[in-house]
Amino acid sequence: MKSREFLKSNWRQIKNTDREKGIEKPEIEKDCEKVIKLPEFNLGNKPLREVIEERKSIRKYTDTPMSLQELSFLLWATQGVRKYIQDKKVVFRTVPSAGATHPFDTYLVVFNVDGLEKGIYRYVSLKHGLCKVKPGDFKDKIIDATLGQQFVGNSAVVFVWVAVPYRTEWKYTAESYKAIAIDVGHVCQNLYLAATSIDCGTCAVAAYDQEKMDNLIGVDGDNEMVIYLAPVGKIV
Amino acid sequence: MKSREFLKSNWRQIKNTDREKGIEKPEIEKDCEKVIKLPEFNLGNKPLREVIEERKSIRKYTDTPMSLQELSFLLWATQGVRKYIQDKKVVFRTVPSAGATHPFDTYLVVFNVDGLEKGIYRYVSLKHGLCKVKPGDFKDKIIDATLGQQFVGNSAVVFVWVAVPYRTEWKYTAESYKAIAIDVGHVCQNLYLAATSIDCGTCAVAAYDQEKMDNLIGVDGDNEMVIYLAPVGKIV
Repeated sequence: MKSREFLKSNWRQIKNTDREKGIEKPEIEKDCEKVIKLPEFNLGNKPLREVIEERKSIRKYTDTPMSLQELSFLLWATQGVRKYIQDKKVVFRTVPSAGATHPFDTYLVVFNVDGLEKGIYRYVSLKHGLCKVKPGDFKDKIIDATLGQQFVGNSAVVFVWVAVPYRTEWKYTAESYKAIAIDVGHVCQNLYLAATSIDCGTCAVAAYDQEKMDNLIGVDGDNEMVIYLAPVGKIV
Repeated sequence: MKSREFLKSNWRQIKNTDREKGIEKPEIEKDCEKVIKLPEFNLGNKPLREVIEERKSIRKYTDTPMSLQELSFLLWATQGVRKYIQDKKVVFRTVPSAGATHPFDTYLVVFNVDGLEKGIYRYVSLKHGLCKVKPGDFKDKIIDATLGQQFVGNSAVVFVWVAVPYRTEWKYTAESYKAIAIDVGHVCQNLYLAATSIDCGTCAVAAYDQEKMDNLIGVDGDNEMVIYLAPVGKIV
């Protein structure tokens, strides 16, 4: 039963964590055999205040394809690596996360990005590249999985954030869930702003069929589950 | 019992909402008899990409006071009003919120802001001003309520977000809690970026004693409850 209790802090009840028990820290992200390298970019030069002023939720996109530079910039802005301490399995990103646990994998459902075949990809942040998950046109499937929201299928690319709760549970046990939800808000706000700065629009989506979205992305819905998504498209 | 279920979407189970029953929409925010008007600002002119690059969690602040212009900018960036449709009680802000329900009140615990007496204030977004809640130096109390985190008391001002769940429940029933937590992440990310752009630092705090924080701010912990906080201070 979901209740208001969820919004409260019970930090003092964090005890006996897997971290304290000496259980090994989980991996930062899955590796990938064949990474598609993302290009460098010189984007996002608009003043922050103007970007915040202009940002709004946008559900109508043009047919203009998104460039690979633009996609590269959006992935960096949302989950890019600022600093990586390999031996401690600690990563600092362009967004904050409770205890730097960063419990997300970013999947993309690609429809209209220059130089990328339609299909599903996963962001490999440590190499700033993409891992191909499966090719195909998933327009009808993602519209169905988002309860008929057509605009999701008319975007250039849909950012789909998958939560991997154990990355945070390892440190914070049952206090993790509120922190994970807040963290994906941090991530998505950077997507809104970065998209706004390059004449793209987005509108985050919380209304979806959990099982259908998990199946589409190919996660088990228990150890990994879709938590939030955001279609992005050009608006000029 | 908090569980991973909280992170999932059960949007199809939203039925019989108070909105559908014709129950009146709750107020956007509390009014205030005597609003302290906040000044205009010309701040935040750094390019977005640089701001995202530079952002990190900062727990050490100088003694330099924050100016009222800076505080005005931070409040606008986090909860400022873009558009207000009075007869429908709909507000669009500088951050997105599920169904534009915007379930937060922003409280400030002020320690070192030019021209503002130490004390607790509430942001009145529709008038872009502050409402004085109570004067006083709450340094020791807020350090205690955040489980001994000294840096919280050494800031210039602490942003304390109070959730008013009914604003979202009215529309989304039990699906509201995940959405509310995500929404406060959107808000806090704008604080991180706006603070970075004016040589301030912040570090969000999820670890606090719920009852002590609610008591300090003066909310009942049921209809209104502290959900997240972020101390901000100058770093130069």
